[in-house]
Amino acid sequence: MNIPPHTVAQLEAIVGNAYVFADDETRRNYGHDETEDYVFPPAIVVKPATAQEISAIMKLANAGQIPVTPIGGRTGLSGGALAIHGGIGLSMERFNKIVEIDERNLQVVVEPAVITQVLREAVAEKGLFYPPDPSSQGSCFIGGNVAENAGGARAVKYGVTKDYVLNLEVVLPNGEIIWTGANTLKNSTGYNLTQLMVGSEGTLGVITKIVMKLLPKNAHNILMLVPFFEAKQACEAVAEIFRAGIVPSALEFMERDAIDWALEYVEGISVDIKPDIQAHLLIEVDGNFPDVLFSEAERIADVVGQFRIDDILFADTEDQKNALWKMRRNVAEAVKSNSVYKEEDTVVPRYELPRLLAGIKAIGKKYGFRSVCYGHAGDGNLHVNIVKGNMTDDAWKTDVPKGIREIFELTVALKGTLSGEHGIGYVQKNYMDIAFNPVQLALMKGIKNTFDPNGILNPGKIFPDQS
Amino acid sequence: MNIPPHTVAQLEAIVGNAYVFADDETRRNYGHDETEDYVFPPAIVVKPATAQEISAIMKLANAGQIPVTPIGGRTGLSGGALAIHGGIGLSMERFNKIVEIDERNLQVVVEPAVITQVLREAVAEKGLFYPPDPSSQGSCFIGGNVAENAGGARAVKYGVTKDYVLNLEVVLPNGEIIWTGANTLKNSTGYNLTQLMVGSEGTLGVITKIVMKLLPKNAHNILMLVPFFEAKQACEAVAEIFRAGIVPSALEFMERDAIDWALEYVEGISVDIKPDIQAHLLIEVDGNFPDVLFSEAERIADVVGQFRIDDILFADTEDQKNALWKMRRNVAEAVKSNSVYKEEDTVVPRYELPRLLAGIKAIGKKYGFRSVCYGHAGDGNLHVNIVKGNMTDDAWKTDVPKGIREIFELTVALKGTLSGEHGIGYVQKNYMDIAFNPVQLALMKGIKNTFDPNGILNPGKIFPDQS
Repeated sequence: MNIPPHTVAQLEAIVGNAYVFADDETRRNYGHDETEDYVFPPAIVVKPATAQEISAIMKLANAGQIPVTPIGGRTGLSGGALAIHGGIGLSMERFNKIVEIDERNLQVVVEPAVITQVLREAVAEKGLFYPPDPSSQGSCFIGGNVAENAGGARAVKYGVTKDYVLNLEVVLPNGEIIWTGANTLKNSTGYNLTQLMVGSEGTLGVITKIVMKLLPKNAHNILMLVPFFEAKQACEAVAEIFRAGIVPSALEFMERDAIDWALEYVEGISVDIKPDIQAHLLIEVDGNFPDVLFSEAERIADVVGQFRIDDILFADTEDQKNALWKMRRNVAEAVKSNSVYKEEDTVVPRYELPRLLAGIKAIGKKYGFRSVCYGHAGDGNLHVNIVKGNMTDDAWKTDVPKGIREIFELTVALKGTLSGEHGIGYVQKNYMDIAFNPVQLALMKGIKNTFDPNGILNPGKIFPDQS
Repeated sequence: MNIPPHTVAQLEAIVGNAYVFADDETRRNYGHDETEDYVFPPAIVVKPATAQEISAIMKLANAGQIPVTPIGGRTGLSGGALAIHGGIGLSMERFNKIVEIDERNLQVVVEPAVITQVLREAVAEKGLFYPPDPSSQGSCFIGGNVAENAGGARAVKYGVTKDYVLNLEVVLPNGEIIWTGANTLKNSTGYNLTQLMVGSEGTLGVITKIVMKLLPKNAHNILMLVPFFEAKQACEAVAEIFRAGIVPSALEFMERDAIDWALEYVEGISVDIKPDIQAHLLIEVDGNFPDVLFSEAERIADVVGQFRIDDILFADTEDQKNALWKMRRNVAEAVKSNSVYKEEDTVVPRYELPRLLAGIKAIGKKYGFRSVCYGHAGDGNLHVNIVKGNMTDDAWKTDVPKGIREIFELTVALKGTLSGEHGIGYVQKNYMDIAFNPVQLALMKGIKNTFDPNGILNPGKIFPDQS
């Protein structure tokens, strides 16, 4: 929808003329994230600086029934920040301060537009550790991480974003400003509004301040890359490592294609891989006692040694560790640079990984698409990049969605679900009926309606079009 | 309210004659938990065995506007299971099976009436670890733990019940049976109904099956008891231990009275304590590598050694460890055996503990009551047992609630809240206005209304009478 001139004037009065943009370039710029090639420009881009300004904007939007889409770092993979109904694009970029690193309580108070890596490095300087590390950590906003309940490689040992959020300052759709909980490690006081807000993809409120818990920083880690001659065996090894009593701090799976494409895409990294290697596990253990880590790494080597593997590569230096992580983090970008693609974020109980992988390949064969699979195998979280390559536009538009539907049906049959860490947003919403029946969806809609009776905040997300 | 005869007949038809009770003894028996001396007998006690039976009961209750109160192990400390409006007491006791210990995925599927300790021991036999260990673990139900988001001594390192719940089968107030999520470690698929249900104290649905994650079991631990000459310093030492980079697996605080009363109450345990010792910390570290634990214990000894302490007692044998834990677990019972009392479950960021403790004592002095304080100091979770002793009934009824209100105002001012792990239930509900303003309470009520429009499930809990 277009924004009437008097509303534009009111927005300018709220945030200042300099922070309201209606030009095409800005609108286009704020009309996309990293989700495929979608662009949905908001009618107007507004950049508030305080919760009070957002409160005033929300009241205005409610009065005028104008959609408001919160926009963070625009690195999302499910289209949560796309202004699919136009309206106001609410860029959070000015909320970019680390308010307080509380070393006494091991907590941090942070605004939502702080880049995740900036936050991680700032607390690390004080000897503290914020574990969640999505691959986009160099550019994503911590507020987006909270909105999508982002994960990352360390989630397998340390949990996802939700496990670190203690309390949130939120502007509700009606403009009221609340805190969702308390700054405590435990809380049994009323309904858990904090965890309801985490992962709600900007549909229940606009996050303006985040209180997170931190851990003491671990001094040491060991990183190893294990090449498998069979991808299925790499998946099987994942559950075995846990059954041996080890909880690695990262346990990443990469299909051969993922690693090849990443090596081609990222400059200056070389790994020598035999032609018949099908997959790799990238495994990290961390802690304060090097002897313990050596012993754990040895035990892991014993476990993976029961499968058909080639020589394990141990990263000897910080540079080598960084190179391996850089390779892993760039898989999605590398695939994207090769072809139009769709990325799915399947998650299952980890023992089911081999079945999931085999099923995805069979479904690909049936519908004629190729997929590159990789991800946080320790969590059972497998990213599936479906590559367009030489497929016709027709097949891409009609066959691939059928295949995706079958992939999701498989994840749910394996007691998994649609998204482990990317969210549902815009691109997965029409698969929600696979994970949830009408009763469950009605409950979620009831919650949405309680928070946002006029449906103005980030409309067109999460819920299927036909529900 | 009374239950009309035809409804009784319908209930008998649903669960069988043998599982419907209207006699005074049964009603009284199911009319209390461990909350002070409250007794609210339900009009009728029903003991269903399946989710389908509960579904039929909920439909009947909705049709007849009959209150339904889910009843678990009756060990609660906030009155969550009290049938304060009579109606149907829904005893969950027949849901007492461990459905599956899934060693491949490190998960367990369990029914709600399994006793927490039974669950912990069953998974331990398979080399697995379910960390939450409320003091009542020998008699509380795991379903009650989920409903109240129970904690325990190990929460400081391993988190509370919510951190282990992956998925819940729930009978909604309208009788529909749903699963709240998926059996996965990560999940960004729609609103987090699982975490909304955890800690909702039986007001949003009846939990009939629980999927929880487990950890590999740690092989070793070290337990030490540190006597402090000043209670305030014991509190201060808590934050210092974390700042030294150690995350103990338990870090419990006990005032002198707590330990004295417990030693008197529990038979066969003796600890030699100097007369001028004011408080103790009970500290545990755990892991798989004894050398690491020795080193951590040494570091802890260094930290606490900076304060005025007496000799540290290291528990040398399993028997000695069990004795110390038994002493700690029996503090509440010991206080209860001495006097009528009220137990509050305050929680603050851990560095604020000394201020909280000093404030509680000052408030006690002002209103003329004595308190015994102890609890999970590592989490900032301090239990405050207010002892009636020689107070007049009048002072107990009028002055003590004013003092409790001031204690809660203090916790909130310190960025803490009313309850860390016991829940709000019946006895704390009229203090909710201290933690939440009308906007927040209206949101929670909106959620309640979405789930339970007729307000029949566990009415009269959580929300203040005047809201």
